[in-house]
Amino acid sequence: MNTADLGLPVDVPSTALFTDQYELTMLQAALRAGTADRRSVFEVFTRRLPSGRRYGVVAGTGRVLDAVENFRFDADLLAFLREQGIVDEPTLEWLASYRFNGDIWGYPEGEVYFPGSPILRVEGSFAECVLLETVILSILNHDSAIAAAASRMSASAGGRPLIEMGARRTHELSAVASARAAYVGGFASTSDLAAGFRYGIPTVGTSAHAFTLLHDTERDAFRAQVDSLGSGTTLLVDTYDVAEAVRTAVEIAGPDLGAVRIDSGDLLLVAHRVRQQLDELGATKTRIVVTSDLDEYAIASLAAAPVDAYGVGTQLVTGSGHPTCSMVYKLVARARSADPQDPLIPVAKKSMGAKSSRGGRKWAARRPDAYGIAEAEVIGTGTVPAELADHRLQVELVRSGEVVAREPLDAARARHTAARGALPMSSVQLSRGEPVIPTEYV
Amino acid sequence: MNTADLGLPVDVPSTALFTDQYELTMLQAALRAGTADRRSVFEVFTRRLPSGRRYGVVAGTGRVLDAVENFRFDADLLAFLREQGIVDEPTLEWLASYRFNGDIWGYPEGEVYFPGSPILRVEGSFAECVLLETVILSILNHDSAIAAAASRMSASAGGRPLIEMGARRTHELSAVASARAAYVGGFASTSDLAAGFRYGIPTVGTSAHAFTLLHDTERDAFRAQVDSLGSGTTLLVDTYDVAEAVRTAVEIAGPDLGAVRIDSGDLLLVAHRVRQQLDELGATKTRIVVTSDLDEYAIASLAAAPVDAYGVGTQLVTGSGHPTCSMVYKLVARARSADPQDPLIPVAKKSMGAKSSRGGRKWAARRPDAYGIAEAEVIGTGTVPAELADHRLQVELVRSGEVVAREPLDAARARHTAARGALPMSSVQLSRGEPVIPTEYV
Repeated sequence: MNTADLGLPVDVPSTALFTDQYELTMLQAALRAGTADRRSVFEVFTRRLPSGRRYGVVAGTGRVLDAVENFRFDADLLAFLREQGIVDEPTLEWLASYRFNGDIWGYPEGEVYFPGSPILRVEGSFAECVLLETVILSILNHDSAIAAAASRMSASAGGRPLIEMGARRTHELSAVASARAAYVGGFASTSDLAAGFRYGIPTVGTSAHAFTLLHDTERDAFRAQVDSLGSGTTLLVDTYDVAEAVRTAVEIAGPDLGAVRIDSGDLLLVAHRVRQQLDELGATKTRIVVTSDLDEYAIASLAAAPVDAYGVGTQLVTGSGHPTCSMVYKLVARARSADPQDPLIPVAKKSMGAKSSRGGRKWAARRPDAYGIAEAEVIGTGTVPAELADHRLQVELVRSGEVVAREPLDAARARHTAARGALPMSSVQLSRGEPVIPTEYV
Repeated sequence: MNTADLGLPVDVPSTALFTDQYELTMLQAALRAGTADRRSVFEVFTRRLPSGRRYGVVAGTGRVLDAVENFRFDADLLAFLREQGIVDEPTLEWLASYRFNGDIWGYPEGEVYFPGSPILRVEGSFAECVLLETVILSILNHDSAIAAAASRMSASAGGRPLIEMGARRTHELSAVASARAAYVGGFASTSDLAAGFRYGIPTVGTSAHAFTLLHDTERDAFRAQVDSLGSGTTLLVDTYDVAEAVRTAVEIAGPDLGAVRIDSGDLLLVAHRVRQQLDELGATKTRIVVTSDLDEYAIASLAAAPVDAYGVGTQLVTGSGHPTCSMVYKLVARARSADPQDPLIPVAKKSMGAKSSRGGRKWAARRPDAYGIAEAEVIGTGTVPAELADHRLQVELVRSGEVVAREPLDAARARHTAARGALPMSSVQLSRGEPVIPTEYV
């Protein structure tokens, strides 16, 4: 499937240049050395969760599949590589016909993960796999960071809907991916129209302070908004005086006013006052939306407040303190040739510090306790023990270059809710802590 | 100019949907109320710098100009808005012929800024200006955050070249913008090929640990790399044992080996040992590149180490703790009609908390002391005092919808070096502090 068929507003003719130069120079050297076609296994994993976090959320898998399919070197890109002398002619020739023809298995989107979880496994020749490193990591590191923040926020919101509205605080295309990841993590809607267009995420939005300031009075502004958008709209009540604005709002829209939005001040206090005032004015069904610099802690602190929905911007798109994950893409095994009979040899960096990794092609399973609650992330390189066979985490995503696991975004969103629900209750504690289940290597 | 003419690898047919839905619903309500064509002035500014930072860096201006030019609603986008019922038919009709025809003035790219600095001023009808809010903020908030981190890192590096290599830690297109912003902030090159293709930024890169692990021995790997990329290449020496790798590297490449890269361990200690070993082996011109989780503090701590270049990834693309700026786009003045004779009325939100702002169309100047060093950011709404006339900061960027201030990226990069150089010396202290000059309102 071409991305154009997906209604992508930002057409991506190729993802092939979202790539660090060294992937191409390694390819060139390996082609010349005759090692480029060695059968290889790369794995994506992280050595640790962001400090204090109890679980991670896999997001971006669907975008990875798009990126792999669209990883093609067209004439313009090849001309650029030639002009800049980045790789030699034999390499350019090889790139011209590049298509990923290998296999990809991985945790399905929305699943949770822990330190060491083999989130994605890419198998094929060294050459075809190494090229994908940068773009796969870009997508998974970004989208998973946003989804993790979204998941904590949605757990804190306890069923009240969350609106993603952080587009203005991040790169314009990160914003689209962030809205998507937030939806996977449990958000209900987004302000970002491109995210609605590209991914079908519900979009919302009514007005900003500028609209009130444009008009000669707040009353004029509310009247203009209700005339055009109906009484079900959301009126922003904190441009001048909140109590006066709420009175004016109900006077103009009537008791059927959809919602009021509060974007500044002590939200806990103001929400209580506004609720009382709305009720006294008979607008008992008018909802209260709050939107000022919220994060998971602020959301939790409003649990007892009469708030009906939260709008979250900056802290969502910046991962609430952790704007990226530390996922890496490592060669973990390779053969001495392209021959499928040639055995895979586990490999791993062995040098200083905490950067060493475990070689070998891995499986992963989440072992449940007697009540069905997860008790360990089990990772191994040999045969999967029979008792874990039904609890394996990796699914087939790409078979011989063909994507076999497309799914609607709602499937990933539902999977996340289920996966989080099967973790110990302490997973949704906001306090800093260790991963909620241990990683065991067998 | 269409973005396609710029050789954009990711074609952006339109930037119009990188927009919060409320910009469009406000437009609809204002069209109906007859207020949409009121002459308006919006300004971009920030109320504060990120905690502890001493100056900000304007970056993304060139991308803003691209975005404004390409802000067009084509048939696909209009069909989406119609199907989703986001705006009504009169609004869709208005959008179909939308072109920004107003004026934009702003701080030129690479300039520094302070709390309150009117970084961008957008003037035109309310309707044409309000639509641009989201995409302008996305670009400036992201790119300026990255450039600020880059600037601190380049000041710390004291003339040694910095390589941007964070693509894998951020969204694939944020990565391209990050490489661009890093270049403005003083970086020398990037690993990101798309940034080279799109913006002409020099690209670099040779090999990763996977290349060593692919081969049966480190010696085989080094031989393969030198055979293909020449002895001027950079060999990665920390896959197994550094001392042995350095010995092997010089044996294979000879004393003309271009560089070795160290990506783990105690960089200060290892760099000294490697330098000594290289010198003893006669490879006195072989450079040392270090690349492990660097930020401005780690770079500064290596000032006395024999390091020739720094590669920076995660901390660069995440703004070194501040992945976004808090720039806002506010209506600061508007008339009661479209008539140019109708006076502009300053407007500002007046509600609770720290979110109020100053109304009025502003000028800005940076007042130098007797030695030419900046001593204050002066902002006013009236006439510019004669003594500040030559120190004004805003330049014309767009005139009646036409971009008039395109410039090569090198101009922004040079401007940043000059602007930072004209600040008090304490601007480049890494310790947390107040903005290095005060903002004065006159």
